[in-house]
Amino acid sequence: MRFFSDNAAPAHPKVLEAIADANCLDTAYDGDEWSKRLDGAFSDLFGTEVRAFWVTTGTAANCLALAALCPPYRAILCHKDAHIEVDEAGAPGFFTAGAKLILLDGQGAKIDPQELADACDAIRPDVHQVQPAAISITNATEYGLAYRAAEVAAIGEFAKQRGVALHMDGARLANALVSTGDDLADVTWRAGVDALSFGFVKNGGLNAEALILFRTDLADEIAVRRKRAGHLLSKGRFLAAQLLAMLDGDLWLENATAANSAAQAVAKTAPERLVYPVEANEIFLRVSPEEAARLRGAGFDFYDWGPGEIRLVTSWNQEGSALDRLTTAIAEL
Amino acid sequence: MRFFSDNAAPAHPKVLEAIADANCLDTAYDGDEWSKRLDGAFSDLFGTEVRAFWVTTGTAANCLALAALCPPYRAILCHKDAHIEVDEAGAPGFFTAGAKLILLDGQGAKIDPQELADACDAIRPDVHQVQPAAISITNATEYGLAYRAAEVAAIGEFAKQRGVALHMDGARLANALVSTGDDLADVTWRAGVDALSFGFVKNGGLNAEALILFRTDLADEIAVRRKRAGHLLSKGRFLAAQLLAMLDGDLWLENATAANSAAQAVAKTAPERLVYPVEANEIFLRVSPEEAARLRGAGFDFYDWGPGEIRLVTSWNQEGSALDRLTTAIAEL
Amino acid sequence: MRFFSDNAAPAHPKVLEAIADANCLDTAYDGDEWSKRLDGAFSDLFGTEVRAFWVTTGTAANCLALAALCPPYRAILCHKDAHIEVDEAGAPGFFTAGAKLILLDGQGAKIDPQELADACDAIRPDVHQVQPAAISITNATEYGLAYRAAEVAAIGEFAKQRGVALHMDGARLANALVSTGDDLADVTWRAGVDALSFGFVKNGGLNAEALILFRTDLADEIAVRRKRAGHLLSKGRFLAAQLLAMLDGDLWLENATAANSAAQAVAKTAPERLVYPVEANEIFLRVSPEEAARLRGAGFDFYDWGPGEIRLVTSWNQEGSALDRLTTAIAEL
Amino acid sequence: MRFFSDNAAPAHPKVLEAIADANCLDTAYDGDEWSKRLDGAFSDLFGTEVRAFWVTTGTAANCLALAALCPPYRAILCHKDAHIEVDEAGAPGFFTAGAKLILLDGQGAKIDPQELADACDAIRPDVHQVQPAAISITNATEYGLAYRAAEVAAIGEFAKQRGVALHMDGARLANALVSTGDDLADVTWRAGVDALSFGFVKNGGLNAEALILFRTDLADEIAVRRKRAGHLLSKGRFLAAQLLAMLDGDLWLENATAANSAAQAVAKTAPERLVYPVEANEIFLRVSPEEAARLRGAGFDFYDWGPGEIRLVTSWNQEGSALDRLTTAIAEL
Repeated sequence: MRFFSDNAAPAHPKVLEAIADANCLDTAYDGDEWSKRLDGAFSDLFGTEVRAFWVTTGTAANCLALAALCPPYRAILCHKDAHIEVDEAGAPGFFTAGAKLILLDGQGAKIDPQELADACDAIRPDVHQVQPAAISITNATEYGLAYRAAEVAAIGEFAKQRGVALHMDGARLANALVSTGDDLADVTWRAGVDALSFGFVKNGGLNAEALILFRTDLADEIAVRRKRAGHLLSKGRFLAAQLLAMLDGDLWLENATAANSAAQAVAKTAPERLVYPVEANEIFLRVSPEEAARLRGAGFDFYDWGPGEIRLVTSWNQEGSALDRLTTAIAEL
Repeated sequence: MRFFSDNAAPAHPKVLEAIADANCLDTAYDGDEWSKRLDGAFSDLFGTEVRAFWVTTGTAANCLALAALCPPYRAILCHKDAHIEVDEAGAPGFFTAGAKLILLDGQGAKIDPQELADACDAIRPDVHQVQPAAISITNATEYGLAYRAAEVAAIGEFAKQRGVALHMDGARLANALVSTGDDLADVTWRAGVDALSFGFVKNGGLNAEALILFRTDLADEIAVRRKRAGHLLSKGRFLAAQLLAMLDGDLWLENATAANSAAQAVAKTAPERLVYPVEANEIFLRVSPEEAARLRGAGFDFYDWGPGEIRLVTSWNQEGSALDRLTTAIAEL
Repeated sequence: MRFFSDNAAPAHPKVLEAIADANCLDTAYDGDEWSKRLDGAFSDLFGTEVRAFWVTTGTAANCLALAALCPPYRAILCHKDAHIEVDEAGAPGFFTAGAKLILLDGQGAKIDPQELADACDAIRPDVHQVQPAAISITNATEYGLAYRAAEVAAIGEFAKQRGVALHMDGARLANALVSTGDDLADVTWRAGVDALSFGFVKNGGLNAEALILFRTDLADEIAVRRKRAGHLLSKGRFLAAQLLAMLDGDLWLENATAANSAAQAVAKTAPERLVYPVEANEIFLRVSPEEAARLRGAGFDFYDWGPGEIRLVTSWNQEGSALDRLTTAIAEL
Repeated sequence: MRFFSDNAAPAHPKVLEAIADANCLDTAYDGDEWSKRLDGAFSDLFGTEVRAFWVTTGTAANCLALAALCPPYRAILCHKDAHIEVDEAGAPGFFTAGAKLILLDGQGAKIDPQELADACDAIRPDVHQVQPAAISITNATEYGLAYRAAEVAAIGEFAKQRGVALHMDGARLANALVSTGDDLADVTWRAGVDALSFGFVKNGGLNAEALILFRTDLADEIAVRRKRAGHLLSKGRFLAAQLLAMLDGDLWLENATAANSAAQAVAKTAPERLVYPVEANEIFLRVSPEEAARLRGAGFDFYDWGPGEIRLVTSWNQEGSALDRLTTAIAEL
């Protein structure tokens, strides 16, 4: 029974259907009917004009955005646990041609505004020190916490004051939104986000993520950078179709709701073990090595996350039976 | 009736089936059952030990390979019409961090061995001039010509003498092989090829290409570079399954045979108009602007390729009726 | 008797004196009195506001400028014989993080305006092909030809129309100016040049070149890029002092005049052997291998430049006796 | 009275003399007599075969070395206060094409071996996390502490065990050596250092630093990278001559001894204020803002280094009178 990660889950049947429906002859790259509908579909969703690009990974979405927002000789401020720092093989350095990540602390992988300000203030404004050009936040965070709209807006306001851009890694944005009930627009562009990596693969997609530009003036550059990075697939309609299927009838919200519910079921079993409140579909539990071994012995897969901590992730299609067995096993620890 | 490019064609039904069959829970990235079978499957195919990596585009396959074969401060020799030079948005410069392409001439986008030698000899062996580290050839070429095994071997021999690596862009390798009847091993690793971009998308795939390393010592580096470039998809099994489906029962050869037959049908219609012999699934015709307009008026789509030249590409699923109408229309010009 | 290159000549005594005079305690980097005078001194010289940066090599000046004028995913148009293409070890690729050089032809290493336009027109305006961002010309050219102000202006006009920047590699600009009698402003900023690598080392300097920005808005970026490339020397006053000494009393023109005169003396000896008119301090002669050997046997050093061609370069301090022996030897061939 | 930095001090008269003596005609770049003597001179100094390259800045020396020791997709471990992290404008990212710096803690900017091991152990050996390729230490450190030979050897041993390279930023190596009395060989190559940035400019040089390769197999790559970075000066003999002058009669040790003595004089004045023991020519004092203001009011220049800390640096030519006034002023605080 796998609780490793939502990125190993199957794709939703409607996503597969959409791929099958797109299996015809059309123009290559992103000139097809499906790809051309993306800007409109996402603009409708966000309630503002956006430019939407399909890519196949969150790393590509994150790093294409960061490369457009940060020149090689400047820096990106992010949490020290951010995926771009910890789990993308140095991709920001590759895409930006050597920009620097400045690492911040903060509870639950959430950026602390005061620490953000302090980090910026500590940089001498001269040519010897690398000046920041962008801030990147992850929502939900790597510890499964959700930024509220007001929290993002505070960071967005700070970014504007300092003349730096704001990027959001939304690999699990759907889960965060479902959890907080915030409005999608409020937590993104209205809060000052310039570019968003909008995750779908962890949420029932097959292999299509969306890079959303609220700064539409960056679209031409992103289009070129996507091609140059080998991310302009020739049969792009199969990616676009996936995204449209996810938006259709709010499937993306439905899937995230299911995953979050499963996570809440686990959380309720052992509130005293929670490292952080469960605000998305990840549960971090305090569990001794012996207890972890017992869970594994019972057939559950998950990551060790730190000393005495484990991470469990629920998925859009979490089976009831596996979930029941997990909650029972945790309760019996 | 589209004769623009084989990269706009649909995916083969068996490829879609393979994707559907892979739609279960498995490990993320390339730890799944399908991905783990790739090395074996391709080693069997090539009759030697290889390491096989799925990627989603030919550009990614080409440029990951070139980055591993050529350091930033050296050069790659290729034909001036090579896809990596002309149609990849400068991706080699991005992936290699600034390596140089040295452009060669040669009929039909095929590298001329003498010109290759002359180009190398013209480089002063000092720190001021960029020294070559790799040669990249395209098979079939951008003009639809197929390298014979002996031709590749001559270049491979030269590469070995000069201590440079040899890469093959095989976006249409299947079509070339079907055309020449050469053995796959003879035209690749036995001829000195170190790394091969093995194309499947143009040949009935959905979005999976293969990067084949005959120099297996490069595998660890390629694995890291793939991740770093955002090309390690989290649900990699959907790519691996496509490749396995293409190999299964030699579907890749069957598809290429179909595309080539269609091309031959067109070629036979107007042998006097052929710019080059048709050795794969691309037909380059001498056609006046008026004639081209007439063909377009009759509903045919294709590229203008040069002054008085058009390119037509046939696909694995070329419909008989469209083909008949095309040959008729050309005959009537 | 060395006629290899002016970059092997000694430094002018006044340059050494200026270094000695600057040998005191002052602020580090470019905060010192000498460095702070550069903007003013060069603004006076050019008759417009410029920003001037000392660097130690022409390669650094060229490539810092190009990196600021051309993003990684675009291209620089230059002559196929340009120093940045032929003799800088791929430095443009390094500084720009992978931008492409598009190579043009043209007599005497001078860019032909028609070919420039044709090259631009041949680029499809899509994401697959690399779009140009800058043009770089060399004045005097690598074949010792001088661009007239009107020639530069024509290219500058074209650059403006196409929205691309114009860079001039002026490693031997002094020699070109002395030869044509053009006004410095006319041949640079009034002709549309955005950034100029202004050479002094070949012209009697020790190790200081100037990067001149007519687009002063690029100054902050250049300052950072210079530091980041390891080109912000800590005792910068020793470079600034050299440049000020070269400007003082028009020493730079005096030196170039001397070098050009020596070149004219050689040119007059064998007008029928000249590959190109001598418009600076380089002489390219048609000389058989046997004749070249005879010259070398007589103690003269120089480069072979092509089949049956040699290059001789005169310097600011060309000794009369060596020059006399050279002209005599050539006459006797 | 400037105690800002030793990098603002004048050059030693013998360095200027050496430049004047080299002011003749010789071959360009590093083919001249002076440059050709460097390998031998430094091999003699170190008692082992080395390859020595002149460059004009410590940043160039550091980052050329790091680029040769660390591929773009791996990491360099260094102290969080290291110059390469804090004061080089992100140059390591530029030269390496995006390698990552992993920051370590440790008293006085000295790397703590245990923390080094912990940092390495914390990296999962997979493609998602950036694997280390090199360690860089600074000697003397940014807080003026000197590594003992045994300390370097312990890090060198660790590096060897983990298969990573070891680089030393020796901008003030002379000062460290004079202070510890260690043998130059013991603290460098015998301790496992692969490449050394050997500083001379802060120690009485004009604008020549040395990059020393104990791994001589890297020499060809460094030679190309130096050119490609615009650091191959055409009149290189003026740099080589400076280095030879510094080695001649152990001028480099003499200068460092003088600077260190001056620093000790300051240290003795206020031992209770020392943040760290003074082991080179930098003194870090605990001084209140009011006290700092008083010192400045009395005509002393220096950096604020942290809350309640100032940095004073003495130079090879520290005047007795300024030093006396400084010690008196500190004593009177």
